[in-house]
Amino acid sequence: MTIENVVNAISKAKNIAIIGHIMPDGDAIGSCLALYYSIKRLSKKASLYCTDKVPQILNFLKDVDRFKNEIEPNTSYDLTIAVDCSDINRLGSFKELFLNSPLTIAIDHHSSNTGFADINLVDTNAAATGEIVYGLIEKLSLEIDTDTAKALYTAISTDTGHFSFSNTSTETFTIAADLSRHGLDLEYISRRLYRVKSIERIKLLSRALNSLTMYANNKIAMLTITQRDMLETKAMPSDTENIINYAKEIEGVVLAILIKEINDTSVKISLRTSEELDASELASYFDGGGHKRAAGASINKPLKAVKGILIDKAMSLIKELD
Amino acid sequence: MTIENVVNAISKAKNIAIIGHIMPDGDAIGSCLALYYSIKRLSKKASLYCTDKVPQILNFLKDVDRFKNEIEPNTSYDLTIAVDCSDINRLGSFKELFLNSPLTIAIDHHSSNTGFADINLVDTNAAATGEIVYGLIEKLSLEIDTDTAKALYTAISTDTGHFSFSNTSTETFTIAADLSRHGLDLEYISRRLYRVKSIERIKLLSRALNSLTMYANNKIAMLTITQRDMLETKAMPSDTENIINYAKEIEGVVLAILIKEINDTSVKISLRTSEELDASELASYFDGGGHKRAAGASINKPLKAVKGILIDKAMSLIKELD
Repeated sequence: MTIENVVNAISKAKNIAIIGHIMPDGDAIGSCLALYYSIKRLSKKASLYCTDKVPQILNFLKDVDRFKNEIEPNTSYDLTIAVDCSDINRLGSFKELFLNSPLTIAIDHHSSNTGFADINLVDTNAAATGEIVYGLIEKLSLEIDTDTAKALYTAISTDTGHFSFSNTSTETFTIAADLSRHGLDLEYISRRLYRVKSIERIKLLSRALNSLTMYANNKIAMLTITQRDMLETKAMPSDTENIINYAKEIEGVVLAILIKEINDTSVKISLRTSEELDASELASYFDGGGHKRAAGASINKPLKAVKGILIDKAMSLIKELD
Repeated sequence: MTIENVVNAISKAKNIAIIGHIMPDGDAIGSCLALYYSIKRLSKKASLYCTDKVPQILNFLKDVDRFKNEIEPNTSYDLTIAVDCSDINRLGSFKELFLNSPLTIAIDHHSSNTGFADINLVDTNAAATGEIVYGLIEKLSLEIDTDTAKALYTAISTDTGHFSFSNTSTETFTIAADLSRHGLDLEYISRRLYRVKSIERIKLLSRALNSLTMYANNKIAMLTITQRDMLETKAMPSDTENIINYAKEIEGVVLAILIKEINDTSVKISLRTSEELDASELASYFDGGGHKRAAGASINKPLKAVKGILIDKAMSLIKELD
């Protein structure tokens, strides 16, 4: 079984590199940290890597400062683990490190996972990679300490919209129940993750909501964030997270779109759909990917051009529904 | 044990009145419904009573229309159960019915519970009365069906701020895990309870956030909603609810203010403070009132004038803190 292969590989390794995906989220960071703590408890060496900065919102987690964005000099790893990455490009600047590693593992829950590692511990039924890491820690026969519980709870909470997305399962609650036994301050974690917001974030939200445009009889809600919005509000890239939900949660909306202008010639789009529409289908039209309900793509076109094409394509998909 | 007394009382009864508290919330309604379903499965008669209307947000629950606000004629009950009521006045217009009942039970989790019934099944460690009803159904050896699970999940979710208040416990998650096994659409319930928002509400939020102004080194955050905002967004008065939290939840904010223009010569102000400041003290300056953390006032002055006076007064209070 795959999980036993992972346990064996970790047991044999001496120095392990753990890599979270570019533009990391709570699941990537939390799962990496939980894995890191567990490997440390097995008295092995480990390094945490991530191309992009850990979002400020996760700063309440211990050891987030251990994530490095450059390879430690004079170090070689006998095992490299990609965490919450659906494909090898999600490793960002650590793709080389991964490819040069004598043995590689991917731990992931995305249905679009390409199976890019030597051992692929992929469970698309898991609501978060954190759930898979939880199972792995059990298999490693390790006790869960407070820091590990906090990291995994954060991973699971953030990837399930705090137990509210459709991926939330009996397993999710069962794991949360167990994690809550390990001295977690659940109210504090919720406050840090969901309630305290920077003024820059609120200013960005204000700008984004201001851009709200409805199409197709209010079935499509579109938000845009321009370079200027980011510059003038002094918002961080991670401040764009969750903004798309304001569009998704409008009564009757079937498709929510967020277009984020990266520079004058490229944008990133995020898509959220209700049951009727497949977000990944729309994303694939732009060479993107994701899940049925949530998908995205990077497009090398100016904002204005993307808007036109995207709305056209979306409108025709909506028409098929009628 | 109290719970066995409750089981015995229910087992012996033939016709049971179930009463939720005045101004009912998700815990009251959900717990009443779950109890009602269980009593019905025991092939007994039962009636649901509540003085006030079930909140619209709970309309997705089956059988909410069974709650009556008047006593059914020509009916007598051999057992009456008060649900989620801390004292007898919470029964509203059904206090008499309760007092005239040959046997009474109270099922509640409030620490202020006065023990007003013959049998008081009160557990102040329970996050919701729904958790206690869950335990009771177990004791009654009844299977949980989908409607019961939905009602109890709603009770527990609403009373814990969807698993985010400090009352959320291992028990809460364990019960949620079990309830989720009974065919619940968890995403749908969350959406109905917390997410679906009208487009008017989102437009109003956008306008309100646009008005955000910070004072006193970002310790004061002020939002305004004008008559024009209400008119042009077509928002309902209830759409202003919760908007002040966007100001309150900004990092470092000690005082959040929302000024709502009622007409050209009057406004309503809402105040929220963190630990350091007394909101009711500031409100009392405008002949308003409230609690330490949340207060408000109605002021017969134009918006612009109130803004000036309010900020002056607030600034002097903040200065006292330094």
